[in-house]
Amino acid sequence: MVEASTAEQVIEVSGGSILSPAGFSAAGIHTKVKRKRKDLGAIICDVPASSAAVYTLNKIQAAPLQVTKESIAEEGKLRAIVVNSGNANSCTGRQGLEDAYTMRKNSAKKFGLPEHQVAVTSTGVIGEAMPMDKINEGIAHLEPETGFERAQDFNEAIMTTDVAGKHACFQTWVDNKAVFIGGVAKGSGMIHPNMATMLGFVTTDAAIEPAHLQTALSEITNKTFNRITIDGDTSTNDMVVVMASGKAENNPLHPEHHDWNAFVAGLKETCESLSKKIARDGEGATKLIEVKVEGAATDEEAGQAAKQIVGSDLVKTAVYGTDANWGRVIVALGYSEVELDPDTVDISVGPVETLKASTPVHFSEEEAKAYLESDTVEITVNLHIGSGSGKAWGCDLTYDYVRINAGYRT
Amino acid sequence: MVEASTAEQVIEVSGGSILSPAGFSAAGIHTKVKRKRKDLGAIICDVPASSAAVYTLNKIQAAPLQVTKESIAEEGKLRAIVVNSGNANSCTGRQGLEDAYTMRKNSAKKFGLPEHQVAVTSTGVIGEAMPMDKINEGIAHLEPETGFERAQDFNEAIMTTDVAGKHACFQTWVDNKAVFIGGVAKGSGMIHPNMATMLGFVTTDAAIEPAHLQTALSEITNKTFNRITIDGDTSTNDMVVVMASGKAENNPLHPEHHDWNAFVAGLKETCESLSKKIARDGEGATKLIEVKVEGAATDEEAGQAAKQIVGSDLVKTAVYGTDANWGRVIVALGYSEVELDPDTVDISVGPVETLKASTPVHFSEEEAKAYLESDTVEITVNLHIGSGSGKAWGCDLTYDYVRINAGYRT
Repeated sequence: MVEASTAEQVIEVSGGSILSPAGFSAAGIHTKVKRKRKDLGAIICDVPASSAAVYTLNKIQAAPLQVTKESIAEEGKLRAIVVNSGNANSCTGRQGLEDAYTMRKNSAKKFGLPEHQVAVTSTGVIGEAMPMDKINEGIAHLEPETGFERAQDFNEAIMTTDVAGKHACFQTWVDNKAVFIGGVAKGSGMIHPNMATMLGFVTTDAAIEPAHLQTALSEITNKTFNRITIDGDTSTNDMVVVMASGKAENNPLHPEHHDWNAFVAGLKETCESLSKKIARDGEGATKLIEVKVEGAATDEEAGQAAKQIVGSDLVKTAVYGTDANWGRVIVALGYSEVELDPDTVDISVGPVETLKASTPVHFSEEEAKAYLESDTVEITVNLHIGSGSGKAWGCDLTYDYVRINAGYRT
Repeated sequence: MVEASTAEQVIEVSGGSILSPAGFSAAGIHTKVKRKRKDLGAIICDVPASSAAVYTLNKIQAAPLQVTKESIAEEGKLRAIVVNSGNANSCTGRQGLEDAYTMRKNSAKKFGLPEHQVAVTSTGVIGEAMPMDKINEGIAHLEPETGFERAQDFNEAIMTTDVAGKHACFQTWVDNKAVFIGGVAKGSGMIHPNMATMLGFVTTDAAIEPAHLQTALSEITNKTFNRITIDGDTSTNDMVVVMASGKAENNPLHPEHHDWNAFVAGLKETCESLSKKIARDGEGATKLIEVKVEGAATDEEAGQAAKQIVGSDLVKTAVYGTDANWGRVIVALGYSEVELDPDTVDISVGPVETLKASTPVHFSEEEAKAYLESDTVEITVNLHIGSGSGKAWGCDLTYDYVRINAGYRT
């Protein structure tokens, strides 16, 4: 069971990145799969890093996911993650799987590693054969180094329709040793003209066995990455990978370790920060929407209701139109599958109480409208039936979302 | 079990309406709840009509739904349905429930009926008190008559953001008697600036007991009204009511009656026709999208997958952008919860085959684009794992959807 920790144990590292934890280097280069921007990147660990991953729940999964699963299954250790953007290697049949294996094999050769210590992943167009000549030549030119600029290069190499880079870094303490946790992510629409996917890569110098790292990642993912929605679509390539170098030299972490909660809190902060950055950078978005549901039967139901509300096109357009339209919030709540009492619902839009015990509150439309102009909008719902609470994140639905996604693929 | 019937047993009645079946009259007037358009209507049956209804699955249900449920529960017979638009009487607490009862009581008095033979329903703004003075005065002025113009008046009186009227009428034969089934519906977005709801009203002169009518309606609703999606939202006021006058003088219908299938087919055609008209009139829509899934494990799973595909914002924007983006179709299929084999999926966009056995087919983008310019777009998916099939309907997602729904309530 992952417990939330007190805020004091975790501090944000300004200017931090995936290369803040000891033991990691990275690279990002342009191989001409994409027209202009960098499109091939790698994260390398000096030592075999304990690794864990979570994958898309879509039944259609891209070839590299299968290859990465095989790598991690071997001994739970990775030394390299190699990622390309511009082609998702999804719906590419037998050839696609061979290409993913080739990408792994050539990466292993380049960095002098056993194949099973290499993870590969791809994001971009679905249903087109991988341009393996460019990928293979690119792999030969990857020269990972340390420093924030290399983390930036890697970030650029994994972007598709993303407008902004998405870094996060937090510090915590385990056995009185400073432990860093850094992350980088991409994702804005789930599949823009077939350009897919949410990807997250997290590094840490904590010492931890793969199985415990997987436990922490799986539980945290359910409360962070799985609580964001841009358009309700789930791609064939979604993946989050964590690598732990152990260079912080703490005693290996496990759920009974006295600093387990501090580590989990740091990892959760990192994943939550990346999740919010993804939501804010949603295709065409002008605002981050955070929905918090309290007083639910369970934390899980609270999170589920929050996600249903933040995923409603009608709530999203109301926020875009700076309309404190609580009616759409209660309607979305009503069709979520969580337990509720129709007579006890409170809804606030930022500081503005709009519904109390399911009865409309007279509020200042001007004050609500002014609040909705801000770039982060918080909607709070209290069901008053239990003590469960949870959050979810999304963004407003705008003309630009339609423009971006109605654009012709080619 | 409702079985589909052969097409020959059912014919469409051109210019038909809810007043084509014998025994019905209707009215629609302006009471000033809405600024200009008619906003109060009634359908009256000369005799107590066997009645059945289905209601929203939203946990938050508007007051009139409760009152109508009580009416029908009493003896399964209705003589009047009274509907207002402009105010949904939803999230209006105890006062709202009293207002719904008052609306029923005054309607019963006006038409000289027992209260339990009157159904009431409302559509419009959520969370505002019903303007009962206008409603009560309006009820006194309702003068139902026969003829298509009165059906038009009624249709106008139930509209909110609807652009087009939505009538349907089919004829079938039971015991060699002509039986008419007429319908009218409203609904374009599930809740436009708090203007809610899909409503459907169906009349027939078939003789049938309420329980059998309910069986037929419930099964048909699952394959028609429940298979349309504009924006995934389900309102607090959704309702479909069927009234059967018995004036066709057939032997009462029941599932073992030799013409049961003919009647069910007629009712299904009526409901499907209304469903497609609602989808086509979706807020901001320029096109009707019909998704047909074949080769699924069951009919139910086929329908579920079809609805997931037609509800995907990415599929909807692709259709708007005339992009034969099969990648978005397979992605939506992959996250629907139906059984599938990732290697055996076929996808066609109209006549254009785009994916065969999960492998991209080289197709003419020009041909596909030309097809996607039409005002009805059919997407066909074959899973090749069973014999289940099902359809769902929706519309494209356009700039106008965002404009309409980002508009301020007041």
